[in-house]
Amino acid sequence: MIPEEIIRSLAIKTESKIILVVMDGLGGIAGQGQSELEAARTPNLDRLARSSALGLADPVAPGITPGSGPGHLAIFGYDPFKYQIGRGVLEALGLGLEMTERDVAARGNFATLSREGLVVDRRAGRIPTEECRRLCARIAEKIPEVNGVKLIIAPGMEHRFALLLRGDGLSDALSDSDPQKEGRKPLPVRPLQPEAEFAAQVANMFIMRAGELLRKEQPANWLLLRGFARYPKIPSMSELFKLTPAVIAIYPMYRGLARLVGMEPLDAGSSLEDEIEALARNYERYDFFFLHYKQTDSRGEDGDFQGKVKAIEELDRFIPRLLELEPDVLAITGDHSTPAPLRGHSWHPTPLLIYSKHCGSSGAERFTERECARGILGRIPATSQMPLMLANALKLKKFGA
Amino acid sequence: MIPEEIIRSLAIKTESKIILVVMDGLGGIAGQGQSELEAARTPNLDRLARSSALGLADPVAPGITPGSGPGHLAIFGYDPFKYQIGRGVLEALGLGLEMTERDVAARGNFATLSREGLVVDRRAGRIPTEECRRLCARIAEKIPEVNGVKLIIAPGMEHRFALLLRGDGLSDALSDSDPQKEGRKPLPVRPLQPEAEFAAQVANMFIMRAGELLRKEQPANWLLLRGFARYPKIPSMSELFKLTPAVIAIYPMYRGLARLVGMEPLDAGSSLEDEIEALARNYERYDFFFLHYKQTDSRGEDGDFQGKVKAIEELDRFIPRLLELEPDVLAITGDHSTPAPLRGHSWHPTPLLIYSKHCGSSGAERFTERECARGILGRIPATSQMPLMLANALKLKKFGA
Repeated sequence: MIPEEIIRSLAIKTESKIILVVMDGLGGIAGQGQSELEAARTPNLDRLARSSALGLADPVAPGITPGSGPGHLAIFGYDPFKYQIGRGVLEALGLGLEMTERDVAARGNFATLSREGLVVDRRAGRIPTEECRRLCARIAEKIPEVNGVKLIIAPGMEHRFALLLRGDGLSDALSDSDPQKEGRKPLPVRPLQPEAEFAAQVANMFIMRAGELLRKEQPANWLLLRGFARYPKIPSMSELFKLTPAVIAIYPMYRGLARLVGMEPLDAGSSLEDEIEALARNYERYDFFFLHYKQTDSRGEDGDFQGKVKAIEELDRFIPRLLELEPDVLAITGDHSTPAPLRGHSWHPTPLLIYSKHCGSSGAERFTERECARGILGRIPATSQMPLMLANALKLKKFGA
Repeated sequence: MIPEEIIRSLAIKTESKIILVVMDGLGGIAGQGQSELEAARTPNLDRLARSSALGLADPVAPGITPGSGPGHLAIFGYDPFKYQIGRGVLEALGLGLEMTERDVAARGNFATLSREGLVVDRRAGRIPTEECRRLCARIAEKIPEVNGVKLIIAPGMEHRFALLLRGDGLSDALSDSDPQKEGRKPLPVRPLQPEAEFAAQVANMFIMRAGELLRKEQPANWLLLRGFARYPKIPSMSELFKLTPAVIAIYPMYRGLARLVGMEPLDAGSSLEDEIEALARNYERYDFFFLHYKQTDSRGEDGDFQGKVKAIEELDRFIPRLLELEPDVLAITGDHSTPAPLRGHSWHPTPLLIYSKHCGSSGAERFTERECARGILGRIPATSQMPLMLANALKLKKFGA
């Protein structure tokens, strides 16, 4: 990992432009057969691969299966061990809440409490999402603040929600109220450090008042909080790399992750076509674009091999549109692998393609995991991608004389 | 990076011999076509490659374009982030000054000052090198010391020179006297830390006295100093690796870099043939030889693709002479890439070849970047080369039981 003060001293502002396409969960080589990339018909990616530098990237480290947070932070050039993003923050970002540095976020569940005060269902029978929305709206209306701390609540799927405490003097050194097992009492939120005393009071007061409000509801007559976390302090991409970066992502969590490092969110619409149009429309205003494509991961999570193949083919059709913009650097990779046979994120390295005038091509025939394993970039940590993209865009000075 | 105390504890003194050939700026794969190595006819390197371990090495880190300092230190087994060599030191080494641990070095320019005391030309019209030599000789004669601190000055090309302050109680925490822009006054050298007070006094006194001496000169009637730096404290190769190392380099900067880590400079003559002869002549006296070959970098910097090809072919002819010495390890690499199309150092990894009885060959057909990308060594940091050379020479004990 290049020390931050070094990369900061080497980065220069230039006119050159970088497009980074993250095909979420792209990698797939996890069994004996073909990967989704190998099975897909990708004439445009393959043509591009012939004149690009290819390699395999480890999002975190060999053997480590990354979540979306570390997977993306690494590609953005940040040490995923140093900058860990709390669960509460990811949930809040995923539900589209905008966080500030004064906020503490938590994940929440609606739950069912027995008359004796024991948790009999931690998920309140997985209430419909509509019901969750109604309950959150009620809480938002009736409990806008506690002890001067503003409360912001956002409904998720079924019984899930995210909560923000916004105020001064808060700390995230707080224990969960969720007992994790049924048949137990909800736990009081305890301060894990003395300075978290006030935040614990606020959280417990909120739970009490929400409990009163929900008393007559059925089955969601209580709520549980866990994963308290502050908004992490991360130097921005503009500070570290002198970039003016933008994010184009349909899903809020990825916009949120990008905003953590200072990217400006653009209106991404609701389809890949919309995303590409947003890129073209804003092309003059930024010098770094992170375009997020979700379908590859979603189909992989479903275990839908053919669906993931189709998602790859869908993106392939838009490659000429990206090249028409004539970016100085076009990088295509995944934030982690999601092989359909594994139905989830995996530890396999992700294929990486970097195209520029100066990339030094590997002369590969296709853009696949196996071709990438033989590529000129070799196997590198994903955190090397940002320095490589900057170098290929001639945005880094020489180190040392 | 292997911790220094570990490598120190593993290294053993043996009779085996290592030859490290650094073809400066060797790497060249930066565009769509062939690299210089690919275009060159290199029957001897290719034959050697067939029975060698090949790989690609990152001098500093992927994406980072290294200067000669970090590029060489990494190959010598030193962390280039930890041991950073100041500009003044490199300039002094490059001009052939021998530095001691009591020295502070600076880069100097002769400049032109107006009657009002403003810098009207930071380079004094790029005076001829001859004129620079005359002025330096005058200064050396008239100002041999200031406040008990010895002054050593060496002329460079045109308006450039290097200055050493040699004495006790000096510090390099000093600001530049060079205002960097014309139309401004020269700046006083300021101490950046309290302990640099004395060194600042010496530098300012020197500038004042040199100014008096130059007063009637035209156009070089002043001098500017910048990049103050101490000789870095680096454990020697003999301490760390138990080697008795020698350097064979025609250019003073590379001899200087090698002397930083304790290599003994041999008389390298003025051609590659001279260098090889120096190696053969001294072969019994040392167990590690660093042979530096400059032409590959020079032609790359010129953007002279064919010239770099020829420089590679020239070295190729001497491979049999090296093998005749029957070294236990022969390693061939670059300190960085200098692709002719880029006309300068670049971030691309450098090809690496390690030949020994125990290297484990890749079975490559040629010694090129693309073959190295598929080599058995993979893509490694350049700092791994020294442990690999030592291991191949059976100079490292087992780590742990």
